[in-house]
Amino acid sequence: MDDTTAYAPTARTRPTRNRDRARYDAATVHAILDEGRLCHLGFVADGAPVVLPTLYARVGGVLYLHGSTGARAMRAADQGGLEVCATVTLTDGLVLARSGMHHSINYRSVVVRGTARRVREEAELRAALDAVVDAVVPGRSADCRPADAKELAQTAVLRLELDEVSAKVRTGGVSEEPEDADLPHWAGVVPVREVVGAPEPDPGTAPGSPLPDYLRAFAASRG
Amino acid sequence: MDDTTAYAPTARTRPTRNRDRARYDAATVHAILDEGRLCHLGFVADGAPVVLPTLYARVGGVLYLHGSTGARAMRAADQGGLEVCATVTLTDGLVLARSGMHHSINYRSVVVRGTARRVREEAELRAALDAVVDAVVPGRSADCRPADAKELAQTAVLRLELDEVSAKVRTGGVSEEPEDADLPHWAGVVPVREVVGAPEPDPGTAPGSPLPDYLRAFAASRG
Repeated sequence: MDDTTAYAPTARTRPTRNRDRARYDAATVHAILDEGRLCHLGFVADGAPVVLPTLYARVGGVLYLHGSTGARAMRAADQGGLEVCATVTLTDGLVLARSGMHHSINYRSVVVRGTARRVREEAELRAALDAVVDAVVPGRSADCRPADAKELAQTAVLRLELDEVSAKVRTGGVSEEPEDADLPHWAGVVPVREVVGAPEPDPGTAPGSPLPDYLRAFAASRG
Repeated sequence: MDDTTAYAPTARTRPTRNRDRARYDAATVHAILDEGRLCHLGFVADGAPVVLPTLYARVGGVLYLHGSTGARAMRAADQGGLEVCATVTLTDGLVLARSGMHHSINYRSVVVRGTARRVREEAELRAALDAVVDAVVPGRSADCRPADAKELAQTAVLRLELDEVSAKVRTGGVSEEPEDADLPHWAGVVPVREVVGAPEPDPGTAPGSPLPDYLRAFAASRG
């Protein structure tokens, strides 16, 4: 699905409240997924919900989910597939209203529901791992040692099609009851964002080594 | 549970890998919960997992979860209770290893599992709402209009006991295969953190109004 199209809402992806915040256009959904790197992956184990922080990357219409979901869940993903819900949330601001009830946050989130299956094919697995590394720092996958056969065999990556997908976006200022407008409380928005600090080379990196270009650009763009 | 004690591990909260990252002491668990404001709340709806970003606050040994989980889930929470998993993740750094496989992030996460029940008692509901507002900006609940009876009736807050709880923490530098030590790739950690920008007063706030003390202190401590 390219960025000019939209995902079809389903009964499960239509929000039950704040419907005006729902977005289904691929451009919005993809931009949120591409800005994030960590999703919260939900699945059912022994009848109970489990939510684990999970690194991911989007490649076209697929979300690749990295790492362990536990042996039992991984067996399910190996076989018929594992029903999951992958949610990505970016926080943009704290909304301080004059009434307690209207406090909120500005955020952008994406919820992806579907059946995740383990990636078995070597070329796809390599591409998925590179994408996850590049989701951490863009351009990084070309500047590290690729996985060898043993590492590949140990790696679990799940593939989740972007099909039943929705975004929610809250932007802007305070929403308030009209009768509260004259209350004396400070009201407004406190912006928040994630920033990247100066990269800290490990002891094995030669002193004075310049930062690679992609890393300098990343730190500068997020600093 | 006070901060000098520890949560008892269960079969469900013992990690299946990276066991050295697991923490159960209340001081670590509570510090992570208190630094966060947004959890990812998982539950099961029609047999499938759902994960929604949810504002929360910790009050002693209880997590209060704010807002809608959908009408059906809320009915379950009203009745026997809703099985949930609430996960909070704070990202501290991007770990760039010389091998793709050893890329990671530094993070602190808490997973809380249990049965959430809707808060019905008015005093507890008011205290929970204040706590959620103070989790957004400490001290804020004393500087806004409290909920009236109609607002309280519209508000859904779930109560989740901190009982089956675990934390995972990754800190420090690159972990690497010894044979990769001499590879020429830059390796190290890129710190990341959430920062708070200058508060933006809404149009109804009188020009030149000073920031309230709690807000100035918050912005300065997270700036």
